[in-house]
Amino acid sequence: MLGGTRCVALLAEGHFDATDAKTAVGVLRYRPEAVAAVIDSTRAGRTARDCAGVGGDVPVVADVAAAAALGANALVIGIAPQGGGLPPAWRPLLRDAIARGWTIYSGLHVFLGDDPELGALAAASGAAIHDVRRPPAALPIAAARAARLDAAVVLTVGSDCNVGKMTAALELERELTRRGVRAAFVATGQTGIFIAGEGVAVDAIPADFVAGAIEARVLAAARDTEVVVVEGQGSLFHPGYSGVTLGLLHGAAPSALVLCHQVARTQMRVGGEHDPAIPIASLAALRAAYEAAAAWVRPARVIGVALHTGGLDEPAARAAVAAAAAELGVPATDPVRFGAGPLADAVLARAGRTHAPHA
Amino acid sequence: MLGGTRCVALLAEGHFDATDAKTAVGVLRYRPEAVAAVIDSTRAGRTARDCAGVGGDVPVVADVAAAAALGANALVIGIAPQGGGLPPAWRPLLRDAIARGWTIYSGLHVFLGDDPELGALAAASGAAIHDVRRPPAALPIAAARAARLDAAVVLTVGSDCNVGKMTAALELERELTRRGVRAAFVATGQTGIFIAGEGVAVDAIPADFVAGAIEARVLAAARDTEVVVVEGQGSLFHPGYSGVTLGLLHGAAPSALVLCHQVARTQMRVGGEHDPAIPIASLAALRAAYEAAAAWVRPARVIGVALHTGGLDEPAARAAVAAAAAELGVPATDPVRFGAGPLADAVLARAGRTHAPHA
Repeated sequence: MLGGTRCVALLAEGHFDATDAKTAVGVLRYRPEAVAAVIDSTRAGRTARDCAGVGGDVPVVADVAAAAALGANALVIGIAPQGGGLPPAWRPLLRDAIARGWTIYSGLHVFLGDDPELGALAAASGAAIHDVRRPPAALPIAAARAARLDAAVVLTVGSDCNVGKMTAALELERELTRRGVRAAFVATGQTGIFIAGEGVAVDAIPADFVAGAIEARVLAAARDTEVVVVEGQGSLFHPGYSGVTLGLLHGAAPSALVLCHQVARTQMRVGGEHDPAIPIASLAALRAAYEAAAAWVRPARVIGVALHTGGLDEPAARAAVAAAAAELGVPATDPVRFGAGPLADAVLARAGRTHAPHA
Repeated sequence: MLGGTRCVALLAEGHFDATDAKTAVGVLRYRPEAVAAVIDSTRAGRTARDCAGVGGDVPVVADVAAAAALGANALVIGIAPQGGGLPPAWRPLLRDAIARGWTIYSGLHVFLGDDPELGALAAASGAAIHDVRRPPAALPIAAARAARLDAAVVLTVGSDCNVGKMTAALELERELTRRGVRAAFVATGQTGIFIAGEGVAVDAIPADFVAGAIEARVLAAARDTEVVVVEGQGSLFHPGYSGVTLGLLHGAAPSALVLCHQVARTQMRVGGEHDPAIPIASLAALRAAYEAAAAWVRPARVIGVALHTGGLDEPAARAAVAAAAAELGVPATDPVRFGAGPLADAVLARAGRTHAPHA
């Protein structure tokens, strides 16, 4: 999707750090060669690594003109605001990029192509606007068809939003591929779609069709594949997003789950300042919930834990990994920091393969 | 919504019986005064009662012209096909009604107002098209706000789709109102919306906003109300719709659940003929699942069972009710056949009220 080299500007105005700019960080980690610059006028002059810990020397610039000077001809919305609206501060930047005829990639719930002003500008300049959250036209109702696949289906599930489910799935798919296993990654959110070049943004699909949309994707990905790794969304414990999580779980109908958690997170990110703080459930309670919910359609087991240990020094991170493995009695790792090897081992063991075919 | 008397024609072409024409049957049961005729050319000349067991002497007619002769000036799509598309056989009937300037009420997933042919016809004739499944424009993300209401929130949940969740909720709300309790019904599906005149079709909402949409409705309904009865959707065990069910459960954040089941149903209605048959779970397993899932956000108890005993003679129906009550140790009834009294008793007991204020 993000074709070419050094042609993408990542819009992260006012928010380019490791936690807020989730989409920008994901693209920088997994598609760094595509990125020309990050736009954030509050951090202009710094490097991506300096601001967000990824992306090496990719420069942060103040505006669209500066990104154009570095060769950019496409703009990716690099932040995923809760609710998915268009922050007013971004409109002038989008106007500028569209007027230049840039290709626009947006994962907002609000479709930029339907915006009267931006749509008219794009029609005039010839700019293409890709709203990747726009649902496909014809969608099926799921019927547990993925439960009958020969391929192993693995789903990442989590303690909250934004705890590393996409990253764990990508790292696992890469590790399996490195070992010669025919593995596929199924993207279910905007960042994953930007990285993989295809996928379906399940959270924007009319609710009746969430499971059907992911089922269709999993069936397609399973052709000629041994392991399908599906990016999870939300959490069964999140009062706003749990329905998406369960639809994804039952549509993908996995046999194996990877439980993802950010160690530093103690409360769920829910609602506004006046809303109740909701503590994160224990890993054991999370496992029990996910395995119970999976079994309503197809039994699945948590076969590993993927921790996001950001903010911890290495001894603390290793201790957290060891504690998670001890608590659940399954392999654990921080897939970014320590590699996805333990998860790949667990997936292959679960699939009845104790080593890779070409190992 | 369905204003006036004897002005509505219910479109049920080829499907007007007690099981297929769910929306038509619901409108006939709860808004009979609004209905002029049912359109089904395969059953023309019969009465509604004769075909579907409800609606008394409302005539079944062959086409729009015959309904017009009886005074109809509005058309309600009376069937909810899986997937929500527009069956080709209905198009000529819709063209006829729209050309006459009738008001059209549709709960299909496909929006009739967006159909090029039908939309243009409506623009020419002045016909209004109400697509009640069209999502509201601005929707919040849920944050368990309904869990903090003073009003008791009751949600109907079920063993499958189409087992009586809307009916149980309506009968319970009516029984509470009859007892002088300030009760509100929150419609979450097309039929309920046609009957109540307002509501939100949760299954058509972009998945991220399902819980938020129902939360907003429950908060609004709870103003000046003692009991809010929310219409449930789908089933946690349905591979296609479970996400809608959980989003509704966590958005409404009820303290009490009424478990609904059709006694004659032994397998879930899932997918097409080549899809796996899925047995209906036991009432005990259903209760365990719903109570576990509720507790991820707010604990709730199953306080009663509503059985749909259609097809059973009265002794068998009474035996089924007694068996359900014995299995779960809570009151049970068929609310249509035997009244919603036991459910109202249970709701008031749960809410800390052993009798109605005006009793």
